[in-house]
Amino acid sequence: MQAAVQAFKDHLAPIIDLRAAAAVLGWDQETYMPRGAIEARAAQLGTLGRLAHELFVADETAELLAAAQKEVEGMEYDSDEASLVRVAERDFEKATKLPSELVAELARASSLAQQAWQEARSEADFGRFRPHLEKLLELSVQKAEALGYEEHIYDALLDEYEPGMTKSEVESVFDRLRSDLVPLAMAIVAVDREKHSFLLSSYDIQSQWDFGVAIMMDFGFDFERGRQDRSAHPFTTTFSINDVRVTTRIHEDFLPAGLFGSLHECGHALYEQGISAHLERTLLAGGASLGVHESQSRLWEILVGRSREFWTHYYEPLQERFPGHLGDVDREQFYRAINKVEASLIRVEADEVTYNLHIMMRFDLEIDLLEGRLEVADLPEAWNAKAEEYLGLVPADDAEGVLQDIHWSLAAFGYFPTYALGNLMSVQLFNRAKDEIRDLDNQIGRGEFGELLSWLRDKIHRHGRKLTANELLERAAGSKLSEGPWLEHIRRKYSDLMGVDF
Amino acid sequence: MQAAVQAFKDHLAPIIDLRAAAAVLGWDQETYMPRGAIEARAAQLGTLGRLAHELFVADETAELLAAAQKEVEGMEYDSDEASLVRVAERDFEKATKLPSELVAELARASSLAQQAWQEARSEADFGRFRPHLEKLLELSVQKAEALGYEEHIYDALLDEYEPGMTKSEVESVFDRLRSDLVPLAMAIVAVDREKHSFLLSSYDIQSQWDFGVAIMMDFGFDFERGRQDRSAHPFTTTFSINDVRVTTRIHEDFLPAGLFGSLHECGHALYEQGISAHLERTLLAGGASLGVHESQSRLWEILVGRSREFWTHYYEPLQERFPGHLGDVDREQFYRAINKVEASLIRVEADEVTYNLHIMMRFDLEIDLLEGRLEVADLPEAWNAKAEEYLGLVPADDAEGVLQDIHWSLAAFGYFPTYALGNLMSVQLFNRAKDEIRDLDNQIGRGEFGELLSWLRDKIHRHGRKLTANELLERAAGSKLSEGPWLEHIRRKYSDLMGVDF
Repeated sequence: MQAAVQAFKDHLAPIIDLRAAAAVLGWDQETYMPRGAIEARAAQLGTLGRLAHELFVADETAELLAAAQKEVEGMEYDSDEASLVRVAERDFEKATKLPSELVAELARASSLAQQAWQEARSEADFGRFRPHLEKLLELSVQKAEALGYEEHIYDALLDEYEPGMTKSEVESVFDRLRSDLVPLAMAIVAVDREKHSFLLSSYDIQSQWDFGVAIMMDFGFDFERGRQDRSAHPFTTTFSINDVRVTTRIHEDFLPAGLFGSLHECGHALYEQGISAHLERTLLAGGASLGVHESQSRLWEILVGRSREFWTHYYEPLQERFPGHLGDVDREQFYRAINKVEASLIRVEADEVTYNLHIMMRFDLEIDLLEGRLEVADLPEAWNAKAEEYLGLVPADDAEGVLQDIHWSLAAFGYFPTYALGNLMSVQLFNRAKDEIRDLDNQIGRGEFGELLSWLRDKIHRHGRKLTANELLERAAGSKLSEGPWLEHIRRKYSDLMGVDF
Repeated sequence: MQAAVQAFKDHLAPIIDLRAAAAVLGWDQETYMPRGAIEARAAQLGTLGRLAHELFVADETAELLAAAQKEVEGMEYDSDEASLVRVAERDFEKATKLPSELVAELARASSLAQQAWQEARSEADFGRFRPHLEKLLELSVQKAEALGYEEHIYDALLDEYEPGMTKSEVESVFDRLRSDLVPLAMAIVAVDREKHSFLLSSYDIQSQWDFGVAIMMDFGFDFERGRQDRSAHPFTTTFSINDVRVTTRIHEDFLPAGLFGSLHECGHALYEQGISAHLERTLLAGGASLGVHESQSRLWEILVGRSREFWTHYYEPLQERFPGHLGDVDREQFYRAINKVEASLIRVEADEVTYNLHIMMRFDLEIDLLEGRLEVADLPEAWNAKAEEYLGLVPADDAEGVLQDIHWSLAAFGYFPTYALGNLMSVQLFNRAKDEIRDLDNQIGRGEFGELLSWLRDKIHRHGRKLTANELLERAAGSKLSEGPWLEHIRRKYSDLMGVDF
């Protein structure tokens, strides 16, 4: 029994509760909240954010942390106690650099900005969102300056989402990735000229929902400890290891949007639901980094859900559910359709080949904004220029351009790169899972995911935040972050799929 | 500009935010939360309750209150400032008597008890709920003792819901009411032998929902500042004047349950949505008492919604929606059916005549529990005996007996009497509204509620908690609380309805 560690945990528990309460309010805001409530909700989120912050940076935390640090000296690195103290130390050091007022102001401003973003997007009117974004950028710069950084202001923000990662590391991965990916993507796009109009006809929304839920249950999502709702932008949020919520948006006229959205968020949720029960209500109950989180969602969405093996099992039930749409479409045709590669404007609907291009253009823009080389007012134009540069396309309006993503309305600058990092990690992890699970392809072909989930639980999920992204990757995949395996996966999959040697 | 009052308001605002956050978590628990989340949710609600309480009872509150008190000296009684200070003083005095740990423990225990109650009810197994109820009773006694009282322990609890009211006042109203009502109800029941099986056939749930929502909109519920969801037990909860949530439960096989449930909660919601906007995020943004609150819900549900005039307008659309069920049922027959009087076991489905009997039996039991004359273990038996005494019926199991109501799982001892008080007040208010609004019956007969709502807004809603229940009643209805008008309403309505002189 560690009295000091226990006292420290007891001290932190109400802070975790406040963060969870804020997450519930945030979830409600995106799913059910009536429009008129926005000002009140912003105030409530501001208060919760400020109180959680104040309690965390209190002198008492420092004292209890110091006592706990003494107590865990010599304990095993992986132990719950040593890990909690290690992670808490890092969090505390960062939090104490942030004034409570700035924290509350960011929570309040981003709650308001979300509503403005939704309205702006639905009217394709960037002007409506612009003052909010200017405010959030200004507050984010203040936050980055308060947190401090060694090399680049971006490092301070990126560290929130991908602890330990720096702008220059991202840049060097992206540089290598870009030089291979741009010609590769162009080559695949040039070959993939097939049209698959059957995906675009009207699919009953409830049937889409039910089909997605059935697969989520097969994957292992526990609906006694979570649920799915609808929202404008799909997301996963956690109020407890035993209460993990995902949302999805379903397009009546485009089957893959809802289905793969559900599988994607389900991947995030499996991570959260798989964290060891004894980490509940501690700082360790969360993902190691957003990159690792994204590796889980992309693994289930893409490497499982868009694989040929997967549809060996699921295509027949899908055909039975939509006989009018898919009765005459054979499985291989469907498989090619859901892996159609083409330059497109909306990130969340991009294929896996061009997806990382969307990330790289956002990364470029964020750097420009933070270095002051780009004004928010000029962002739509800059966005369109980048879209042309990376994708060869120009958005018709801001709704399918600069306003398409929720992230900046959450002041989440530094978030986007983690999507690409997650893609790379997902392949590194999945390759190793295939090495270690005999017969994994066949299992997927039979709709059996138990062994894969157990492997991920053991290697990734159960650890929560105890280990860093690097530690997890090195232990689970036996390698550091690398773009090679992902590029190799793309080459292999699409060479096979198109009968062309990329 | 009142600097001290403003400082006091600023100090209280985060406390209001925390309470609102707790309300969101409570709403979610009753509507969408997965079962597995209950322990975490209880902890979260415990933390929010404790923090809100700690912030409120802090020395700073006393200091700021004292300064504000000085500043409002000589101000008009009805002014926002003087009212805020007056109400805050009362709240503060009570809150400082309660230890924070007790507040947190009550929040935590009742969150757990709600889940246990739901499970116990669905399995008709009181034993499962019993330890929770024992715990809540014990904590409630502690709470009452901490709050203190002059005459009776019940007064301390009742005061939470009906400020200023005492057990002996309730008793004397109930005594007078009982002596007239018991023979009156028996007489009406004896005459009303008609069966109306058409209400019991299967009504499409979505159509029921839509019909109820349409009437809510006609009443004036603002769906931009509120919404309706489903829950096991209908309730209204407020996160802001601009975010008022109602829930309902719809029975496929009994049309009135969902419909009148919606109209009832809508009445509560109209009150909350009608509070003056400048009371937002202050202690004054709420109802004067639960009795006054219930007067609003019953006014809209019963005095409007179950009146002959109302169905003059709405019966045709209802028939059109359910032609198979109601095509051959004439309006008067329907009117008699929804006002059918009979002894029954479930309070929320009771007719307006026997409803108060349900309340009186609960009041008796609460007094017995609090005076220690009744053990929780013996409650089911005592319940059944009371049901037989008041209603002439014995529940077949605890689900339709002692487990039917959520209130005790919320530790809401002292709450039930407010239902009966609300019934009495509703008639006092509605009588005055009829005096002051020429043509009100005809307006209702045309589905026009604007003038009635405006009258209620002016007399009741806009004041929030500025005035007490007595003050509101004396100003709006010109009389003190009295059972006479309600009894007279029942006699008149049912004499007319049944052609018998009661």
